[in-house]
Amino acid sequence: MTEPVLHGYFRSTASYRVRIALNLKGVGYADAFHHLRKGEQRAPGFLALNPQGLLPTLEMDGAVLTQSLAICEYLDETHPEPPLLPNDPLRRAMVRAFAQVIACDIHPVQNLKVLARLRGLGLDEERVSQWAAQVIDEGLEACDRLVRDEAGPFCFGAAVTLADVCLVPQLVNARRFGVELRWPRLGEIERACLDLPAFCRAAPEQQLDQD
Amino acid sequence: MTEPVLHGYFRSTASYRVRIALNLKGVGYADAFHHLRKGEQRAPGFLALNPQGLLPTLEMDGAVLTQSLAICEYLDETHPEPPLLPNDPLRRAMVRAFAQVIACDIHPVQNLKVLARLRGLGLDEERVSQWAAQVIDEGLEACDRLVRDEAGPFCFGAAVTLADVCLVPQLVNARRFGVELRWPRLGEIERACLDLPAFCRAAPEQQLDQD
Repeated sequence: MTEPVLHGYFRSTASYRVRIALNLKGVGYADAFHHLRKGEQRAPGFLALNPQGLLPTLEMDGAVLTQSLAICEYLDETHPEPPLLPNDPLRRAMVRAFAQVIACDIHPVQNLKVLARLRGLGLDEERVSQWAAQVIDEGLEACDRLVRDEAGPFCFGAAVTLADVCLVPQLVNARRFGVELRWPRLGEIERACLDLPAFCRAAPEQQLDQD
Repeated sequence: MTEPVLHGYFRSTASYRVRIALNLKGVGYADAFHHLRKGEQRAPGFLALNPQGLLPTLEMDGAVLTQSLAICEYLDETHPEPPLLPNDPLRRAMVRAFAQVIACDIHPVQNLKVLARLRGLGLDEERVSQWAAQVIDEGLEACDRLVRDEAGPFCFGAAVTLADVCLVPQLVNARRFGVELRWPRLGEIERACLDLPAFCRAAPEQQLDQD
């Protein structure tokens, strides 16, 4: 069995999600780094693997897997322990909805690609950063409401789920754009997660490609 | 058992996805319409139900479900026939990745909310439309690559999947923004889907709130 290869970038929060999931599942992997700001994701060799030129991309089980949430669900289906989703369908829907607030409503509207598009329209750095900060602030407010009345220490109770896997990386981006982290519950969740080696080892500052 | 209530808008492509899934599963539902352009999704009554003020929102089984893909997966888990995902985990990952190209990479970057944000930055209508068209064009190119070598008539073979549920609504938005539909395979998939009553009845022009 060939070892999985994760094509990622230390600062890509979607790659960070997959690193956490691989670690939680105890799946060993080799890193292939692609520096997003240098445009390495558009190198012909990588485009041959993933024509969309997006990170993360996971080579595993003879296939090329893309899209971080699809990858996490694949890992959950092929390595059921520990589960990333609860058993109950309604609870699964809540966890997935939380993950999708981040993966659909926040991250794609503030990622490097969109910010580059805004710069291309002539926006200065201050307005570009404001855009990102505003999108993150609104989105995390929605996240907080979804878990405010849930038991801790994690998003949805005593076990880590896909919701936590998405939240922790997004909080890194929030800080990067100067968003005031005004949600105590989200801070508690982050601390509980970062107590776990699976999250710690996946952090951007632990990656060998950090500059 | 109370009938499910779908809070939607005829032109919301994310609502359209859920309408298709409900129809495919044979789940009857009542409509609650919220006119996005008139801002009805920000009315206090609706915000009490879904604080994010986003459509679609599905009241079902005593819960309030949000995020279209999470809702579709919930329907698939609670009403397994006909399945929206293949059995094989790798094939499931491919279908989910295709759905997420649309639900994460395309739609959130060209929805009404983002376009309003761009107008707020002083962009004129032409540049706003160009932004949407460019995002959709790039995204559909990625979609096409993912299914180009797959057997038809649907995205991933002989059965409808979550990929088709996401593609058909996105093609409506593509036309709206004047994107040239230069992918014959995607056109064939759309025609195969629109031959099915579940897709037809879910189309924007079949909704009672169309203006």
